[in-house]
Amino acid sequence: MKRVVFGYLRKLGIALLAISGSMALSAAPPSSPVAAQHVENQVSLAPQPSHKPKKIGIVLFDGFETLDVFGPVEMWGRLPDYEMVMVSQHGGPVKSAQGIETIAPLSFANAPQFDILMVPGGAGTRTEVNNPELLAFLRKQDHGTEWTTSVCTGSALLAKAGILDGRKATSNKLAFRWAASQSDKVSWQTHARWVIDGKYISSSGVSAGTDMALALVETLYGRELAEHTAHFTEYVWNDDPSNDPFAVNEKP
Amino acid sequence: MKRVVFGYLRKLGIALLAISGSMALSAAPPSSPVAAQHVENQVSLAPQPSHKPKKIGIVLFDGFETLDVFGPVEMWGRLPDYEMVMVSQHGGPVKSAQGIETIAPLSFANAPQFDILMVPGGAGTRTEVNNPELLAFLRKQDHGTEWTTSVCTGSALLAKAGILDGRKATSNKLAFRWAASQSDKVSWQTHARWVIDGKYISSSGVSAGTDMALALVETLYGRELAEHTAHFTEYVWNDDPSNDPFAVNEKP
Repeated sequence: MKRVVFGYLRKLGIALLAISGSMALSAAPPSSPVAAQHVENQVSLAPQPSHKPKKIGIVLFDGFETLDVFGPVEMWGRLPDYEMVMVSQHGGPVKSAQGIETIAPLSFANAPQFDILMVPGGAGTRTEVNNPELLAFLRKQDHGTEWTTSVCTGSALLAKAGILDGRKATSNKLAFRWAASQSDKVSWQTHARWVIDGKYISSSGVSAGTDMALALVETLYGRELAEHTAHFTEYVWNDDPSNDPFAVNEKP
Repeated sequence: MKRVVFGYLRKLGIALLAISGSMALSAAPPSSPVAAQHVENQVSLAPQPSHKPKKIGIVLFDGFETLDVFGPVEMWGRLPDYEMVMVSQHGGPVKSAQGIETIAPLSFANAPQFDILMVPGGAGTRTEVNNPELLAFLRKQDHGTEWTTSVCTGSALLAKAGILDGRKATSNKLAFRWAASQSDKVSWQTHARWVIDGKYISSSGVSAGTDMALALVETLYGRELAEHTAHFTEYVWNDDPSNDPFAVNEKP
């Protein structure tokens, strides 16, 4: 009985959250088809029975590529049960390759165990691939994640850290050769928008991370929420990981 | 003679910038087809004969929508002759609707005249539409811009400020009715990924801003650089402003 009541209260809570979210963002009254659908989508989820949100930890470093991070941030920003946190080596402001600063509230020293880890790419990876503290942090986090993900040349960092040994993975197609050179123990896929191998998901460059992020939403919550999220952001989602318009034609 | 030398030196500078940019990001040697094409694209531009970069000012406010800002930031981040700056009412960290903080180095009080103004949307617009300081800042900036642009419900702010009077514009299709209600002097377009009217460019929601941003790159620098930028970010560009998969079927 308690469980039934708890489940009902939780669903009601999520429904109210969804209604308020819809109202805030679309200014549509709850009786409108849009908001109603939004509510329906949220309520139909099977949430984890835990009070504390799970954590998606996104690693920032100087020279990270903007859209590698913020495409997924947009798509993961309203997931029930998950909160996103930015982490960098020392915490504080971190400048992207495009010169804009984002604040990382967490540092390697004080970051908790993440449930999902995401490593972006960008020009900064050329430095970070030789940063033992970063590589150690990735390894340490990876031991306890449910999912370890990367966008673009972020997979080069995971590979260098030894995390992708024996796994299939992909990377930014323009920098594929460099990324692949970070480890010969990885089975590098030249034709893939993203690759899933066990708990490891690596995407191709920049925008591919956004497609990959929606695929993870689908894995966690089902097709409906992924499609709804894409629609909500007016995003035309490439939901086929084998559809890689930017594939390279060379062996890594 | 001096002008010829200056022009040559400037082109050489841009070429070197492009080469180093390509090397940093793609790790491809200058002789590779990718980097060479990148260099060619940059060198073939007709840059403005000025030493000081032009400014793209992006207005941030609490609750801005992540991808409204960072899609365009990604696409405008490597333009020759332009630098991007974030501005907010008081300057400092600004939290997006997704809960991540970005630093605005500029405030309304100390911002210089921007050459391009960009106003994003998001949940925060429901508050900012009633913020006289923000509306006054937009009007002041608009007087001196070459382009005044918006993404998503950012057009509602421009409309409320009176900036779009007599102009065609569009907005986020999920919040279209609310945006359109901000001004009846605007000719609201229900079927448009983005709309250009004079110096005013308004895009539909969230992801549409990324398509719009590339269209502005094309306007400023030509088709080649826009396509190159899309390719570089592995982005499938919808380059047709009349192709609006999320159009509403109602009159505003």
